[in-house]
Amino acid sequence: MDALVVREGEHEPSVIDVPEPVPEAGEVLVRTLRVGVDGTDREVLEGGHGEFPAGEEYLVLGHEAVGVVEDSNGTDYEEGDVVVPTVRRPPNGENRYFDRGEPDMAPEGQYHERGIVGAHGFMAEYFTSPAEYLVEIPAEQAPLGFLIEPISITEKALEHAIASRSAFEWHPESAAVLGNGSLGLLTLAMFVHTHPFERTYCVGRRDRPDPTIEIIENLGATYVDSRETPVDELPAEYEGMDLVYEATGYAKHAFQTIEALAPNGVGALLGVPGPWEFEIDGGTLHEELVLHNKALVGSVNSHVSHFEAASDTLGSLPEDFLDSLVTGIHGLDDWERAFADDDTTIKTAVEFAAYEER
Amino acid sequence: MDALVVREGEHEPSVIDVPEPVPEAGEVLVRTLRVGVDGTDREVLEGGHGEFPAGEEYLVLGHEAVGVVEDSNGTDYEEGDVVVPTVRRPPNGENRYFDRGEPDMAPEGQYHERGIVGAHGFMAEYFTSPAEYLVEIPAEQAPLGFLIEPISITEKALEHAIASRSAFEWHPESAAVLGNGSLGLLTLAMFVHTHPFERTYCVGRRDRPDPTIEIIENLGATYVDSRETPVDELPAEYEGMDLVYEATGYAKHAFQTIEALAPNGVGALLGVPGPWEFEIDGGTLHEELVLHNKALVGSVNSHVSHFEAASDTLGSLPEDFLDSLVTGIHGLDDWERAFADDDTTIKTAVEFAAYEER
Repeated sequence: MDALVVREGEHEPSVIDVPEPVPEAGEVLVRTLRVGVDGTDREVLEGGHGEFPAGEEYLVLGHEAVGVVEDSNGTDYEEGDVVVPTVRRPPNGENRYFDRGEPDMAPEGQYHERGIVGAHGFMAEYFTSPAEYLVEIPAEQAPLGFLIEPISITEKALEHAIASRSAFEWHPESAAVLGNGSLGLLTLAMFVHTHPFERTYCVGRRDRPDPTIEIIENLGATYVDSRETPVDELPAEYEGMDLVYEATGYAKHAFQTIEALAPNGVGALLGVPGPWEFEIDGGTLHEELVLHNKALVGSVNSHVSHFEAASDTLGSLPEDFLDSLVTGIHGLDDWERAFADDDTTIKTAVEFAAYEER
Repeated sequence: MDALVVREGEHEPSVIDVPEPVPEAGEVLVRTLRVGVDGTDREVLEGGHGEFPAGEEYLVLGHEAVGVVEDSNGTDYEEGDVVVPTVRRPPNGENRYFDRGEPDMAPEGQYHERGIVGAHGFMAEYFTSPAEYLVEIPAEQAPLGFLIEPISITEKALEHAIASRSAFEWHPESAAVLGNGSLGLLTLAMFVHTHPFERTYCVGRRDRPDPTIEIIENLGATYVDSRETPVDELPAEYEGMDLVYEATGYAKHAFQTIEALAPNGVGALLGVPGPWEFEIDGGTLHEELVLHNKALVGSVNSHVSHFEAASDTLGSLPEDFLDSLVTGIHGLDDWERAFADDDTTIKTAVEFAAYEER
């Protein structure tokens, strides 16, 4: 079968022929419909993130998948069920994080991530997965089901951020997303439609006209150009933020977030930068965290209940927003365009098969 | 009546004669027993923290008090009840934080702090307080009731830190206290006796023999000399910490805490440093927060329920620990020694009256 992979030593994807997977006991065979492309895929291609499966000279790409059960293989699924796979798998048998249903809390070395770390991804005509790592979604979500994984990342981050504010009465009104990539825009839409904050902001560094700025403003949020208003000046220019969601991986933002927060606010950190030394006013930031009861909460990955919540969320986001977010669905004859990274590309997916209702 | 105050322009306490307070409606008149001395009092004396009451040329010191109801003034209290006052008061009528019973969450400008910011403290023969800001404690706690306020600070910080870990199964085993002052030692004793962590550490910078190191080791905790093992090297030298409690106000510790934590750990920040610029590897710290689901939670002050919890906690701390912690109780003829800040002084209090059971 065809698969989109990155080969050892290369930094561009290739389409190669790989063996069709055979489900083991407890596993389901899934026919892949679509697989989204995101920044992590680009980091994997660049070689800055991830790890090939042991003994393999290539890695099948892709971790944002939606597919249809082709062979339920004796599990509770039925042929034709529309499913989304979670990403982490136990590397050497189970461990306590997987036992608890919280693989997202496993430390490095205690998980593989399909399409990223040590395990093949979903960009192939078929994939297999233990039934417990699949989440069934409504058939009508098949076309955009590849958005459920990124939405689940935000479900988890918000769950943890909100938990950090659960020891007191917290009535957040203002929220800022740092970053206007697809994850930032999905999160902004959640802030407006499913959480909903009264006032929302999205921080980017793009000139108008720009399709992401249009989306931000169509959502009713305020676009902030960080070249004019640095993140730590948000309170002076707009207002202190009850919640800041960092989705840039730009490390200075993590620390500027402390100043961007309103008293009792929380910053959810999602980006994954590499080492970078710089100067901060650490005394003032420390004091600000303490005297105003602020918190920073890092969050990575997500688990089954976050995928289930994400499916509900996807169902309540407006169609016009989703239409403008997804800028391209590309078949295997045209997959290069799914990996384009220009100012008109927001969210793309590679299509392996069209969904046909049975 | 006699009061221990700091006068405008001075940096040492004085004993002066001030008018005896008269309780207003809803207020109780309390005869002061003992008032503890802590680092905040020293910062107030140095002038780096706090603010005089409007129009006053002195500030009555002290915020860690225990007393006996002298005149219940029509409230639900009875003469002879042993009480501890909370610290924050609404500055201009109530505000929503006080309405909710959470004055500790009020931002700057929306609170006074008795003995610190804008309101007289408790270091006088009598004080008044609205009944709602008093917490009744068992009579047998009268001698050490001045420890309830500092314990309440930790009750709140731990409540918030633990809340931040409530979105997943968290089973903390290791905890480190940064700082071997009286708050650090009280917290360490709580980690050992009331929470209890399996392995506890306390980080200081003292040479042996030292009474705080003796207390640490008598509690069964490990003393770590930060001159030999910097905070960010705790995982390499000992283990990653599920919880770090920062009680030094040394700003670099707030950021080193991120590296000191085990995966999924939380750092509770308590210290209040001033501005201080320094370099950090912000990229690595940001990445570490995200990839290992870590959190930093700032915490200041405490409210009534934390004082109630602190009274329970005080009742379960071992007597020998409390005996070694409290190094001096000094009357008004000897108050200077309560403010001594040498390596043999750990926790002191000024005594205004001896407790007599009625």
